[in-house]
Amino acid sequence: MTTAAPVLDLNADLGEGFGDWSMGDDAAMLEMVTTANVACGGHAGDGGTMRAAAREAAARDVALTAHVAYPDLSGFGRRFLDIAPADLTDLVIVQVGGLQAMAAAEGTTVRGVKPHGALYNALARHEGQAGAVVRALRELGGQLSLVAAPGAVVVDRAREAGIDVVLEGFADRAYLPDGTLTPRTRPGAVLTDPEAVTAQALSIATEQRVRATDGTWVDLPARTLCLHGDTPGAVDLARAVRSGLQAAGVRLEAAL
Amino acid sequence: MTTAAPVLDLNADLGEGFGDWSMGDDAAMLEMVTTANVACGGHAGDGGTMRAAAREAAARDVALTAHVAYPDLSGFGRRFLDIAPADLTDLVIVQVGGLQAMAAAEGTTVRGVKPHGALYNALARHEGQAGAVVRALRELGGQLSLVAAPGAVVVDRAREAGIDVVLEGFADRAYLPDGTLTPRTRPGAVLTDPEAVTAQALSIATEQRVRATDGTWVDLPARTLCLHGDTPGAVDLARAVRSGLQAAGVRLEAAL
Amino acid sequence: MTTAAPVLDLNADLGEGFGDWSMGDDAAMLEMVTTANVACGGHAGDGGTMRAAAREAAARDVALTAHVAYPDLSGFGRRFLDIAPADLTDLVIVQVGGLQAMAAAEGTTVRGVKPHGALYNALARHEGQAGAVVRALRELGGQLSLVAAPGAVVVDRAREAGIDVVLEGFADRAYLPDGTLTPRTRPGAVLTDPEAVTAQALSIATEQRVRATDGTWVDLPARTLCLHGDTPGAVDLARAVRSGLQAAGVRLEAAL
Amino acid sequence: MTTAAPVLDLNADLGEGFGDWSMGDDAAMLEMVTTANVACGGHAGDGGTMRAAAREAAARDVALTAHVAYPDLSGFGRRFLDIAPADLTDLVIVQVGGLQAMAAAEGTTVRGVKPHGALYNALARHEGQAGAVVRALRELGGQLSLVAAPGAVVVDRAREAGIDVVLEGFADRAYLPDGTLTPRTRPGAVLTDPEAVTAQALSIATEQRVRATDGTWVDLPARTLCLHGDTPGAVDLARAVRSGLQAAGVRLEAAL
Repeated sequence: MTTAAPVLDLNADLGEGFGDWSMGDDAAMLEMVTTANVACGGHAGDGGTMRAAAREAAARDVALTAHVAYPDLSGFGRRFLDIAPADLTDLVIVQVGGLQAMAAAEGTTVRGVKPHGALYNALARHEGQAGAVVRALRELGGQLSLVAAPGAVVVDRAREAGIDVVLEGFADRAYLPDGTLTPRTRPGAVLTDPEAVTAQALSIATEQRVRATDGTWVDLPARTLCLHGDTPGAVDLARAVRSGLQAAGVRLEAAL
Repeated sequence: MTTAAPVLDLNADLGEGFGDWSMGDDAAMLEMVTTANVACGGHAGDGGTMRAAAREAAARDVALTAHVAYPDLSGFGRRFLDIAPADLTDLVIVQVGGLQAMAAAEGTTVRGVKPHGALYNALARHEGQAGAVVRALRELGGQLSLVAAPGAVVVDRAREAGIDVVLEGFADRAYLPDGTLTPRTRPGAVLTDPEAVTAQALSIATEQRVRATDGTWVDLPARTLCLHGDTPGAVDLARAVRSGLQAAGVRLEAAL
Repeated sequence: MTTAAPVLDLNADLGEGFGDWSMGDDAAMLEMVTTANVACGGHAGDGGTMRAAAREAAARDVALTAHVAYPDLSGFGRRFLDIAPADLTDLVIVQVGGLQAMAAAEGTTVRGVKPHGALYNALARHEGQAGAVVRALRELGGQLSLVAAPGAVVVDRAREAGIDVVLEGFADRAYLPDGTLTPRTRPGAVLTDPEAVTAQALSIATEQRVRATDGTWVDLPARTLCLHGDTPGAVDLARAVRSGLQAAGVRLEAAL
Repeated sequence: MTTAAPVLDLNADLGEGFGDWSMGDDAAMLEMVTTANVACGGHAGDGGTMRAAAREAAARDVALTAHVAYPDLSGFGRRFLDIAPADLTDLVIVQVGGLQAMAAAEGTTVRGVKPHGALYNALARHEGQAGAVVRALRELGGQLSLVAAPGAVVVDRAREAGIDVVLEGFADRAYLPDGTLTPRTRPGAVLTDPEAVTAQALSIATEQRVRATDGTWVDLPARTLCLHGDTPGAVDLARAVRSGLQAAGVRLEAAL
């Protein structure tokens, strides 16, 4: 009897510049990931950054998601905005549509939607905004996958609506026993030791679970792992995780 | 021997609000036009205005164009911007893509692109920007029509690239003997007498020409006529033109 | 023994256009109020609207407040934004400074700050944002008054910092027994009967209290009354309130 | 007989980030310059960047100018915008006012205005925009200096209006025989050899002239020299220029 190799998607946020401003090391991250989340004008991103990200991703056969966000360039989409659900649905559609057109211009397609920053966090509990994003996905044709955190209310709403959900895990964040992330304000919330981070990546890939802060195991059925690339250290850490996964025989491929 | 009835498209600019601000009487204009040019975030327009315009146009079988514009909300796209051609191509693609996604959500499609305001005027002579818009149309798949002024350099570039061009005329603007519009700064540039405006609309529809300011005839092979709706007087004038065209047996239908 | 006539300030929000968009009937409201709250680029307002509002207010000896708001043009500042206190302090300073320069150009001065929309509401309970606004007022020199709702946490923080606070009441909103406004989502939240509205304005001006929804009296030590002008009906109502106050001998003058 | 030491102001553009984006090495440049041009929201800059720049400049006794720009974050103010003069006047006032308020909060003041990018270039020949900036300076009280290029039309208009003008030179740009800069599109437009750049700085400081591209001398009565800091190489070059000037006995102090 043979066991299929475990499979994992590695994703990173790209194209997060705007006009003359840039952010992160897109070139380095594109060599590591199987999925690129491309900013589409909410928290960052304009036509030029979308084109560059789509082109480079296409050249490396990296899948694309639309990294939709609150309309908040000055806050980089990291602040909760109490936007009306109908307005949120509309802006998700427009942001995704803009990237879809650019992806087509570069010979590729958008395969999913990953909410960014404060919107991602809000979708864990905010029924109104979760419903709004799911409605946008349905109105966009229902074929795009949604990247979301395990346990988020948006996961249930998306599945009820027939939307494919790709659950996401983090190798460099400590998990609480209930499966949620330790808030960044607490000590130990962010893991920086390459061995510990790689070990957590491996336990997600091969066992679909992680060791929580209290030592217990919590289930984490993630199909994609988020890699950060906004600092030189983050890029090195991402490289270590990728190498560790490959060395352990994990097959890296886009989940959507 | 029978002669086919003359055919004309009537277009108007719609969805030119933003957030809580509105502009023009979209409901009135939608009853009159066969094509609606929908603002897509450059000079005006957001997800909500795009949805409303797309929905109402679809309900009345009115065709849609993307009313692309410089990124200039504070100037309503009416000021020339010396944008680099590559940046212009990118933003046209993103603006059109956003509206396409919303149109699809409302069960309709975008059939063309109409540049707005200062961009429309620039395309009469600016080779770089004209080439940029044509490149965007090609990258968007080459199936969208372009609405442009007769004689504009963008008309030649679009046709060379195999893009369908819909020439546009104005019933309420005085033409110079060379076929260009009398600048608004000159007296008599804007026609306000309903009879004169209707007469000019009719000569465009049935003879493909207009009487210029010096009394000579100039060819005006326009397939679409632009109606303004930003003032109560403009709406009444548009209604008079439409009635006059119908009374004269002109068939009104979308040109794209 | 003579009693001094009761005194009340009437304020309204002006200059809430942006670029080519306008909102409300500024001309009508300027004839009625003693204080104008001028949008300064957060939820609305640009250099042109600021100048027009400052000029017209100066011509009528109407006092000015800076109507500071979240950076949210697309939401008109009506959506809570979880902005960091330090960022809020900074943007209040910049918004006020812009209006101060324009007021000076028009020969007048800004006398106070009135937070707008969702920010106004947040300051009722949000310690971080309340502290941020008070810090901005101190850094602006400590001489500007703050317009705020009775009972708001920002009132206490401002007074502790030595900032003059002008409490604000509403003649056209129903009050709950605890002195807060009935949420707009509940029936009866907004009063539209001119007699009822005028009566409430009078009880605020002469008795510093209002009849709450349960029939009890609640103290309302307001020195300024907010008049709305965004609809024709609102303008008429404002006119009725002003006439009623004057007929009852209330002296109308700026509170700041 | 003794000759007074030649005096020169060194200026650099600072605070050109926005939200989470940063640009240039402000810390390095602040150690070198006597005047800092602070972005105030047109091409870059928000409350946070203005505060940081004002604070650090104040701590080093570096003078401040408001680096006013077209409203064009996506183009970094580097594209000509055909803005109406009245609108330009208004936005200059608001941009300067915002920075003035922040400077005051940090215990310092704005001493001048330096137009940025495409606006700076337009003021060389554009009468309407030049008049608009001068009108803003008058309405701001007439006490702020204007930094401008020798020969620019705005220089004449400012002087006619009694505005102090600080002429600016460039050590790292080649001059044409008529005293204008060689366009960046031509080879040799930008000087990168530290010796050549320092030599040009010295000839400006001590002889008020530069060697033009054809070998002739052109007068350049500049009181301030612009240093660039947007690349590591630029910072090193600026350091070389500063050292060269000091070694030659040039006194470095703010010109405004």
